[in-house]
Amino acid sequence: MSNQNPIFIPGPTNMPDSLRAAMNTQTSDHRAPDFQNILQPMLTDLKQVFKSDSAQIITFPASGTGGWEASVTNTLSPGEKVLVARYGMFSHRWIDLCQRHGLDVEVIECEWGTGAPAEKFAERLANDKQHAIKAVLVTHNETATGVISDIAGVRGAINASEHPALLFVDCVSSLACMDFRMDEWGVDLAVAGSQKGFMLTTGMAIVAASEKAMRATKSAQCPRTFFDFNDMLKANAIGGYPYTPPLQLIHGMRASLALLFGEGMDNVFARHHRIAEGVREAVAAWGFKLCAKSPDLYSDSVSAIYVPDGFDSNKLVDHAYNAYKVSFGVGLGEMSGKAFRIGHLGLLTDVMALSGIATIEMAMKDLDYPVELGNGVAAAQDYYRKTHVATNQEVA
Amino acid sequence: MSNQNPIFIPGPTNMPDSLRAAMNTQTSDHRAPDFQNILQPMLTDLKQVFKSDSAQIITFPASGTGGWEASVTNTLSPGEKVLVARYGMFSHRWIDLCQRHGLDVEVIECEWGTGAPAEKFAERLANDKQHAIKAVLVTHNETATGVISDIAGVRGAINASEHPALLFVDCVSSLACMDFRMDEWGVDLAVAGSQKGFMLTTGMAIVAASEKAMRATKSAQCPRTFFDFNDMLKANAIGGYPYTPPLQLIHGMRASLALLFGEGMDNVFARHHRIAEGVREAVAAWGFKLCAKSPDLYSDSVSAIYVPDGFDSNKLVDHAYNAYKVSFGVGLGEMSGKAFRIGHLGLLTDVMALSGIATIEMAMKDLDYPVELGNGVAAAQDYYRKTHVATNQEVA
Amino acid sequence: MSNQNPIFIPGPTNMPDSLRAAMNTQTSDHRAPDFQNILQPMLTDLKQVFKSDSAQIITFPASGTGGWEASVTNTLSPGEKVLVARYGMFSHRWIDLCQRHGLDVEVIECEWGTGAPAEKFAERLANDKQHAIKAVLVTHNETATGVISDIAGVRGAINASEHPALLFVDCVSSLACMDFRMDEWGVDLAVAGSQKGFMLTTGMAIVAASEKAMRATKSAQCPRTFFDFNDMLKANAIGGYPYTPPLQLIHGMRASLALLFGEGMDNVFARHHRIAEGVREAVAAWGFKLCAKSPDLYSDSVSAIYVPDGFDSNKLVDHAYNAYKVSFGVGLGEMSGKAFRIGHLGLLTDVMALSGIATIEMAMKDLDYPVELGNGVAAAQDYYRKTHVATNQEVA
Amino acid sequence: MSNQNPIFIPGPTNMPDSLRAAMNTQTSDHRAPDFQNILQPMLTDLKQVFKSDSAQIITFPASGTGGWEASVTNTLSPGEKVLVARYGMFSHRWIDLCQRHGLDVEVIECEWGTGAPAEKFAERLANDKQHAIKAVLVTHNETATGVISDIAGVRGAINASEHPALLFVDCVSSLACMDFRMDEWGVDLAVAGSQKGFMLTTGMAIVAASEKAMRATKSAQCPRTFFDFNDMLKANAIGGYPYTPPLQLIHGMRASLALLFGEGMDNVFARHHRIAEGVREAVAAWGFKLCAKSPDLYSDSVSAIYVPDGFDSNKLVDHAYNAYKVSFGVGLGEMSGKAFRIGHLGLLTDVMALSGIATIEMAMKDLDYPVELGNGVAAAQDYYRKTHVATNQEVA
Repeated sequence: MSNQNPIFIPGPTNMPDSLRAAMNTQTSDHRAPDFQNILQPMLTDLKQVFKSDSAQIITFPASGTGGWEASVTNTLSPGEKVLVARYGMFSHRWIDLCQRHGLDVEVIECEWGTGAPAEKFAERLANDKQHAIKAVLVTHNETATGVISDIAGVRGAINASEHPALLFVDCVSSLACMDFRMDEWGVDLAVAGSQKGFMLTTGMAIVAASEKAMRATKSAQCPRTFFDFNDMLKANAIGGYPYTPPLQLIHGMRASLALLFGEGMDNVFARHHRIAEGVREAVAAWGFKLCAKSPDLYSDSVSAIYVPDGFDSNKLVDHAYNAYKVSFGVGLGEMSGKAFRIGHLGLLTDVMALSGIATIEMAMKDLDYPVELGNGVAAAQDYYRKTHVATNQEVA
Repeated sequence: MSNQNPIFIPGPTNMPDSLRAAMNTQTSDHRAPDFQNILQPMLTDLKQVFKSDSAQIITFPASGTGGWEASVTNTLSPGEKVLVARYGMFSHRWIDLCQRHGLDVEVIECEWGTGAPAEKFAERLANDKQHAIKAVLVTHNETATGVISDIAGVRGAINASEHPALLFVDCVSSLACMDFRMDEWGVDLAVAGSQKGFMLTTGMAIVAASEKAMRATKSAQCPRTFFDFNDMLKANAIGGYPYTPPLQLIHGMRASLALLFGEGMDNVFARHHRIAEGVREAVAAWGFKLCAKSPDLYSDSVSAIYVPDGFDSNKLVDHAYNAYKVSFGVGLGEMSGKAFRIGHLGLLTDVMALSGIATIEMAMKDLDYPVELGNGVAAAQDYYRKTHVATNQEVA
Repeated sequence: MSNQNPIFIPGPTNMPDSLRAAMNTQTSDHRAPDFQNILQPMLTDLKQVFKSDSAQIITFPASGTGGWEASVTNTLSPGEKVLVARYGMFSHRWIDLCQRHGLDVEVIECEWGTGAPAEKFAERLANDKQHAIKAVLVTHNETATGVISDIAGVRGAINASEHPALLFVDCVSSLACMDFRMDEWGVDLAVAGSQKGFMLTTGMAIVAASEKAMRATKSAQCPRTFFDFNDMLKANAIGGYPYTPPLQLIHGMRASLALLFGEGMDNVFARHHRIAEGVREAVAAWGFKLCAKSPDLYSDSVSAIYVPDGFDSNKLVDHAYNAYKVSFGVGLGEMSGKAFRIGHLGLLTDVMALSGIATIEMAMKDLDYPVELGNGVAAAQDYYRKTHVATNQEVA
Repeated sequence: MSNQNPIFIPGPTNMPDSLRAAMNTQTSDHRAPDFQNILQPMLTDLKQVFKSDSAQIITFPASGTGGWEASVTNTLSPGEKVLVARYGMFSHRWIDLCQRHGLDVEVIECEWGTGAPAEKFAERLANDKQHAIKAVLVTHNETATGVISDIAGVRGAINASEHPALLFVDCVSSLACMDFRMDEWGVDLAVAGSQKGFMLTTGMAIVAASEKAMRATKSAQCPRTFFDFNDMLKANAIGGYPYTPPLQLIHGMRASLALLFGEGMDNVFARHHRIAEGVREAVAAWGFKLCAKSPDLYSDSVSAIYVPDGFDSNKLVDHAYNAYKVSFGVGLGEMSGKAFRIGHLGLLTDVMALSGIATIEMAMKDLDYPVELGNGVAAAQDYYRKTHVATNQEVA
């Protein structure tokens, strides 16, 4: 038995029936000659989603974390220096991963709620005359704080000092939700997953690697087998994987791409923005504050919301689940207990979003939060009804 | 592509994933010896839902209307008199059906919004000294007006004059939503369908026939083949149907019965009542009126709601669908344009109900109805949050 | 738990995954304005399958037997005479149905294993100077005997005496398996179902009615409500059904039509013929006889096969099921115990057919039939391998 | 569109409908408190399948190769020596993996078609007085050659010299197909996957680690993050994964375990053996040779079969796919062109197996192989029919 309420975690997302059906396929032979006809179009189409003409698309049967590990181990060698800013749990985890693989990680600590510090990067890189720094690692959408970062700005910072560092971007929770421009922003390694904007099950890590990143694989000394880029590309070229491929997710990804392209990527982004804005209107009506420091940092995938002093956001999330069987995200890391998160990515309609807002209102009232029932809902309703004409698209 | 918003029509209902899975079975042989093991428990368990020890359960691959036709043609003969009260579209349709099959239909006209008129029935039957009236036909839950009728009261009216008329009850939109007591209420023919309280697809008409009703089949002269009770019972007894059975629905029905019994029928009724009460709180907060004349007539399956003078309820329903992709029921018959309906039966949670209430509020505001956004939602939230402890059960 | 072996009953058929997925849809609103966009194309496309330009397509949520009842009750009146030849269980059932609805049924008895007796029809109709006979009823594919009849020949017989009788054809187990030409053959009422050539679940009866048949509905006095043609057509015209439609089957039918048209109807027929021929080669290798008297009568949907004297075909079918979990058809009516049936319609490949042939061989050997293991299989293999180039089409 | 024929590759396997349904679940919250109730029983039940009381079960969202990498990197350090015998493609791949991760791999070359060389292991380990060898790596079922190895024998070889080396076993294509006894055989690391004996989609690597193996993780210096045992165990202990879990596969695994335990593991093994024996009877009837050198080496998961001299097994496999849409396995590595493989693991019935045998016979005849149609089929039929009483169990 499972409850049929939508979920409001920042991924995996609610999945459209059509994509569930696409993944629910019987086993077929991944070594058959026509498997190529399924695999190649997926790889080609994924490039469009990253907005890259020249990137190599590399998919692994793994979660997004596997994509991070693959990016690092295929392009870097133990002892090499990388530069990372820590402004949330996911940038934190990336730091940990690099350290475990023997990299020399230089961390710029930032306040949570801020984004990638382009200026600090610029300054640090300008001082790195020897080009000891081999890569700059950035989380595009920090899922822990609901902050979107300006990747073009980071690229500008790198270019300002003509620094040759690779630019790694974690776009797990932004790709296919918010605009991403690999070529224009000069991203060298972009990492995504199947379970967020693509609205599929967990199990496919997706890496896009620039030509420069691919060149780096030649000399990279970090050991790797399962996550080896070149093994994968060699096998893909003749229609397979180096091991058993995630067949059902490949079918699902093709269906997801057809769905997204059918809607139009700009419409997909507009839809995410509209749903997110409604949630933010509700937050404002409650008088609460987002973790994200300023509107340019607001994520359209997830909102992290501070609860008033004296309240425990973990209890709120627990209560919403126990009493109403609706899942929201807890505060992660230093936000544990202080903030909760509303995921609003992937399959979600204005109508579904309202049910989430209404539910958390009930949960807050149950716990004596200083909110009026219906207040946040009304703010979101007002926004949704005024904007439905322009952007309300049928989803899935 | 289809929108993933819940629907708020008074059936077919939103279906739980588990029941969809149960119906999604590959073909198997309906003449195999073990088909019996699937069919017989379904028939036995259905008796419990009707609360009858002795009724015969007869299922047809048809919609509920087919069950009505079967009830009439198997127990009555052309020219025989039946007594029906018309208080909504579904009682109206039953009158039409009887007339087409050559019955002499005596109609008691009632105001829409009222229920079965036990007193008028009593009076009429007392005067029928010759017992010309062979059957009294009652709609338990009038889906057009959201009115539940007192079947025990009707039985009392029949018994008061010791009249031998059969009692036919349409419980299509009440069975497995609200209490139904076939034996206690002395119902002779009860007609239901798969697509309402059972949360399945349309395609199985379910008739429960008392011993008295079965005796009436011996002399009934209305022609019938597809809908013949005795052909069906004879075939069922040896493990089959007289023609190809609705195999997937039989699997689905067994899963539905397991789900309902797992929750407990009393909990099922309490859940329907709670969801319905929240909707009615919202209606009250808007200052609107239900079609049902008094609280004892309120249906827990569907609410029919008058819109204010000067507004067209059909336009409201259309607009909610076009702008927000959410379906509500239009007003039927004489309520067309004057009322809309919110179905709240089958798979529906408090959270899903709130999304429906929020949506219709937006639609009303768009059309300049005199409502405040969030008002109805807040009333429902307040009711749901105060009642969740006692009755919130996980569904499906 | 269910066994995953294919079934070899003459319908319902094995269903392709793609059609199961198409039917596995969540409830949507059948009164929504865009339901029309689903319903109308289905009705239009079905005309192509019947090869008719002018027929009305009428679909009921019922099994094929419901389609028969609808055909009879919508076009005839009690007491009217119809002419039927009995040459199998399904023509027999049609006779019974007509009698129950008060028709005067004149039966031409034919040996089982023969088809529709065009000459006897011609003779009888020529003698019916008063045109008392209102309809001639023919079973296109007699599922009990595996006999296909020459409908054009029957039409010739009717036309020879310029007789105005309507021509009713049961094409339940032939449509979308073997060629059917409603207009060319002058068929007035053709009855089919969802669970045979369309490879869907049971639950949609499909009737195609000629203009002449539609005119007959004006005067037909047989009572009907659920199965009323004109109620259905009136409701369809404004995008609905007179009651709850079989939504999932409508989605399934659209997918089935797309699948069939994608393959091409002539290829569909050729595929059925090829599969059937392989089965018949196996039968010949065993030295057994088909019930069908001559090759022109061989059905490409089902083969009815006499077992040798002294053997009980019912036991064979039981044993195949109990020992190997594979379902075949028993002999019906006067063929009970004497013949078994292999259904080879709908979703079936040469490879799947071989598994059925191999299984029944094992079952026969177990029961000491005079067959050599592998013999029938080899004959079918030989036929399939020699013919695969021309007609092997990917199915579903 | 996809063909509905069964596949005969050595995994992924045909999947039962019930397991496909179990995996087709909507997203739920993997951080919800009740996720624990799903995860823990899976981990506990998996121990039973490995026949271990004390092993830690560690599951990754990855394919089996990921499980190998995890085993190596969590328990060994760069430069350490491991001992491996190469007797097929999968042992070969394991050697490659170890080398990439900086291990010193000592390879014992064996003829393909033989199994793990217990005596050579014994000899080598006896000479390793310094205990430089840290691990012995064995492929339980070599999928390339259809050879099963005697793991108890290898353990005996290790114990004979009281050598402390860890014993790693790849049981990807044997677990839940053939008997496996982790504790009794003294296995330290056993690696399996979801897509073979468990009949699920690819995407879950399953590792069972002995207490000794877990101790080795404390000192192991190979870098790892995604595949870190202790991260996973720590997260599992509080009801989660260190990253997004493969939710649908977890549901699927629970259903698979219920299915396997319901049948009884010994019955599962007996079923695999019976299906395999039938295939081997067919091979004998064709006069062909298995790659496996002797009956004690015959795998019940897959048979690798030499084609006669002068024939190209790759062309045979291609032709079977192109002409009949049935997939078999090609010969891998040095068997390319010389042998083909019939996978007979997971969901497969005798009836399905016969269709595969019949198909490859047709394909061979098409390519002028010296075989008689029906010959191999007859041999398998004879075996299956004589053995059905004892072991024919309903599957899935």
